[in-house]
Amino acid sequence: MGTPLDDAALDVIFRSARTQNKWLSEPVSDEQLHTLYDLMRWGPTSANSSPLRIVFVKSPAAKERLEALVLAGNQPKVAAAPVTAILGYDTQFYELLPRLFPHADARAWFVDKPDFAEAPAFRNSSLQGAYFIIAARALGLDTGPMSGFDNEAVDREFFPGGRVKSNFPCALGHGDPAGLYERLPRPAFSEVCSIV
Amino acid sequence: MGTPLDDAALDVIFRSARTQNKWLSEPVSDEQLHTLYDLMRWGPTSANSSPLRIVFVKSPAAKERLEALVLAGNQPKVAAAPVTAILGYDTQFYELLPRLFPHADARAWFVDKPDFAEAPAFRNSSLQGAYFIIAARALGLDTGPMSGFDNEAVDREFFPGGRVKSNFPCALGHGDPAGLYERLPRPAFSEVCSIV
Repeated sequence: MGTPLDDAALDVIFRSARTQNKWLSEPVSDEQLHTLYDLMRWGPTSANSSPLRIVFVKSPAAKERLEALVLAGNQPKVAAAPVTAILGYDTQFYELLPRLFPHADARAWFVDKPDFAEAPAFRNSSLQGAYFIIAARALGLDTGPMSGFDNEAVDREFFPGGRVKSNFPCALGHGDPAGLYERLPRPAFSEVCSIV
Repeated sequence: MGTPLDDAALDVIFRSARTQNKWLSEPVSDEQLHTLYDLMRWGPTSANSSPLRIVFVKSPAAKERLEALVLAGNQPKVAAAPVTAILGYDTQFYELLPRLFPHADARAWFVDKPDFAEAPAFRNSSLQGAYFIIAARALGLDTGPMSGFDNEAVDREFFPGGRVKSNFPCALGHGDPAGLYERLPRPAFSEVCSIV
């Protein structure tokens, strides 16, 4: 159905894009954050559940709070990036389903079943994390998704109340090519795929 | 760093793209499956771990085996789609890390720690599932990611040996617009995002 993207666009979203480690001072405006969310939110999730919740850490004070909760290697990234988004998931995402998925009583599939709701919330918020990365690139921004932080401490500090759990943080801005490492290889098709 | 995509390209990968429920007979070639994997594999994963494993179900015999393991509502989709990809994750993804992430002994972070390795494998294979969806759209294909199937039975049937676990299946091909439902709403920025 769709028209394929040209090679330059495929380069921007996949082939030439790189995870950034150092950041230029060029800022990211609140308007850009709205544009980014308004694009990425159209990516599909099961039953349109859209469990992703985002705290954009932008002020110096908020950056200091986050820096204290990430691994030492990630602290300079949080300090230098114009924005670091904390991507989390609402463990009670099903409360929005009567509006987001009105065809069925989808809320009833999950309510009062926290163990059953956990995997879909984690899976779908991770899908949305990838949409976030690709949408940012498509809008001309660079990303720096990170591992290595104290999830429980981040939850207490940025998602108080216990309903939202952090998935992973992702720096956002304009990367400094001086901070790039050599590009790493990916598995070949024959190693990880089969056609049956 | 990147050049923003034009509006038409943003429509193809996010704004106009739809999850398809009915499929045209136009086939998907093995070459297209290779092209799709060779594009999506560049999406970032933590420590370049790339845990995604894919079985492309394409032959009539394999489709019959998969149909028996999905919910009734998904059976006609598997039957009609030219290909349904079963996206899974290698629970021993760390065995590739000496090559994929040679900077550090990253294998040692995960080996013999199956509980610790589970969440990164699930998170990163879900990110890669989203890259799969976006890359397919970028190449002019439609997708139909599904929930509702018997993960354990699919694992036994398509990932024998116990090392790879299924995440979710995704139909692939050219969608029949006649099968589309009305587009569902997404949460507004103010409902799910904050800037601090």
